Amino acid sequence: MPLNSIINLMKKQDIDIVFLNDPKNVFYVSSYKSDPHERILAAILFKDAKPLLFVPALEENDARNTAADFDVVSYMDTQDPWTVLATSIKERHSPLSDWSIEKDFLTVERMEALQTNFPTATFEHNISETLQKMRLIKTEHELSFMKEAGQWADEALKIGANTLREGITELEVVAEIEYQLKKRGVAEMSFTTMVLFGENAASPHGVPGDTKLKLNQFVLFDLGTMHEGYASDVTRTLFFGDKPSVHQQELYDLVLAAHDAAMAAVRPGITAGELDATARKIIADAGYGRYFNHRLGHGLGQGVHEYPSIMEGNEMVLTESMCFSIEPGIYIEGDIGVRVEDCGFVSADGFESFTHTPTGIDAYSKLTN
Amino acid sequence: MPLNSIINLMKKQDIDIVFLNDPKNVFYVSSYKSDPHERILAAILFKDAKPLLFVPALEENDARNTAADFDVVSYMDTQDPWTVLATSIKERHSPLSDWSIEKDFLTVERMEALQTNFPTATFEHNISETLQKMRLIKTEHELSFMKEAGQWADEALKIGANTLREGITELEVVAEIEYQLKKRGVAEMSFTTMVLFGENAASPHGVPGDTKLKLNQFVLFDLGTMHEGYASDVTRTLFFGDKPSVHQQELYDLVLAAHDAAMAAVRPGITAGELDATARKIIADAGYGRYFNHRLGHGLGQGVHEYPSIMEGNEMVLTESMCFSIEPGIYIEGDIGVRVEDCGFVSADGFESFTHTPTGIDAYSKLTN
Ligand SMILES: [Mn+2]
Ligand SMILES: [Mn+2]
Repeated sequence: MPLNSIINLMKKQDIDIVFLNDPKNVFYVSSYKSDPHERILAAILFKDAKPLLFVPALEENDARNTAADFDVVSYMDTQDPWTVLATSIKERHSPLSDWSIEKDFLTVERMEALQTNFPTATFEHNISETLQKMRLIKTEHELSFMKEAGQWADEALKIGANTLREGITELEVVAEIEYQLKKRGVAEMSFTTMVLFGENAASPHGVPGDTKLKLNQFVLFDLGTMHEGYASDVTRTLFFGDKPSVHQQELYDLVLAAHDAAMAAVRPGITAGELDATARKIIADAGYGRYFNHRLGHGLGQGVHEYPSIMEGNEMVLTESMCFSIEPGIYIEGDIGVRVEDCGFVSADGFESFTHTPTGIDAYSKLTN
Repeated sequence: MPLNSIINLMKKQDIDIVFLNDPKNVFYVSSYKSDPHERILAAILFKDAKPLLFVPALEENDARNTAADFDVVSYMDTQDPWTVLATSIKERHSPLSDWSIEKDFLTVERMEALQTNFPTATFEHNISETLQKMRLIKTEHELSFMKEAGQWADEALKIGANTLREGITELEVVAEIEYQLKKRGVAEMSFTTMVLFGENAASPHGVPGDTKLKLNQFVLFDLGTMHEGYASDVTRTLFFGDKPSVHQQELYDLVLAAHDAAMAAVRPGITAGELDATARKIIADAGYGRYFNHRLGHGLGQGVHEYPSIMEGNEMVLTESMCFSIEPGIYIEGDIGVRVEDCGFVSADGFESFTHTPTGIDAYSKLTN
């Protein structure tokens, strides 16, 4: 259990208090999920006392019902939260203490508020990396949520493919996908759904708009769904038409070859940088290296911007149950954009994908028959 | 212009460098809008040199095309951004300098990275409040975007009302609203669209689900749309049925009276706390004070969690062109939830609303005929 692992680590390293206020970390240790916006939400762990979940008053009941291992303390909007928090912490631990904070999340302002309220405490330790590394390795529980999120992403692609017709706009396709998903109970996407026609897919900041679909164009779908707090992420570039041009066929096959090679190369022990290189070499050898202008993939979990980053120079060794995307692409501005992406996890001897939508330049017909 | 105002302030207060990395502040000073996720995006202003926009390589072209007043410097994912940044800054200003940072946004980790790269600089000044206060007062330009966002929010309510029928689920209504909006080109909502039936509206964390609509229930809609980077936010509680019960009528009228009183009380010079009290007194005098368990409203701009906070004890004086919501509510768990919300701005002598959907317990019929 994450909570126990951290408390054991605190004992070993003689850290008195861990202060977590990244909602993702709070969820990870307490199972309580909330977006507090500008308000403070924090999980405070003690070396030698029951942990504390600190929430806005409106959330007190929800928090109590969810976070069984925590004492829940709440504050009203009209109170100074730091004073309430300081009182509760001082009841549990001496103010003279060694804290560990999330240096990648805690703001300077909140850091200064802690220093003011605990003038004899020190705040040197950084717990960020510990939590990142723990969260890298998904539990069976987490993997099962992510598999289901992946199935819904496949379903979304199927809906999208079946919506395509000449003259429909990108935004209409997005609308139809999300409409069908919501009607089936999938309320939240992992990120803004992308549907881009033809050369629009080549723009690094392409946004779905009122471009109309023409025959013999590529349609790039990049989308994901949330399930129980976990994300999926998939991209397919579908050929909509009678017969692809030689140029379309060549680029598609090249991206797919890079994608397939990377999928096949995953195993415990390979580094993130080596995996990126596997795909990048194939595209570069064909002379399109400079058009593959992003990393091969990104970690996946509570969101789509987690560790590990599958990119050049990253020497992180990939191990079992790490989750990430594999998504090579080629983008030639004003001309064409192709990307193929699956997400999944490192298994004992390879890569197990959460997403299973067919690939190949004829995938459109497989999705629509 | 915001940029010039800040640079003038820097000269007056002898601040050498302002470092902004909140994407909302970056947009505000540079017109360049981007969500960099874990990457660094920053606007760096100098007392006596051309400002710098620091972006990931992929965004370089977009940034150049948008931020005319800035030198654009970019970094690759494979580079250490802090080294690239430090070089660019040192070309423009002596490393021995007084910085002002966003203490409410900058993380401890990034603060430490700045300290490491600029060991002779000081980072005492906090620019956060200055920017908050500037962003509080909207320009004509900003107000025009918010008016249009408000019109789309009204339109969304109309779509929602016309979707209601016995047996439809909350999520189906959400799906229909967003589908119709997307088909008409409105791609982004300000926050997750809320549609809640009957007692579901009383839960502070109600989430649209598969509850089916019954005759003689209230339907609470809380939604908003984004337009050119600016948000709207509106709530209507529509009575769906033949005849409201005495209880439904009583609570609805009470909330509406509180809403109308607050709308009428706005004028330059009133404080946020006084405005909250105006609405709260009406509900409390009727004996329902403890069921109005949140502040009266929140600021509005690039998002729906900005200043001013319209709440008890906030002595901020409201002045012309401040934008916020007015949204009293009564929530009795397991029973009923009612809220009426409009958003708008302080005019020369009152409150001008961005949203104009009819209120009253018969509003449903006005929206559907
Ligand atoms: Mn992805
Ligand atoms: Mn609101």
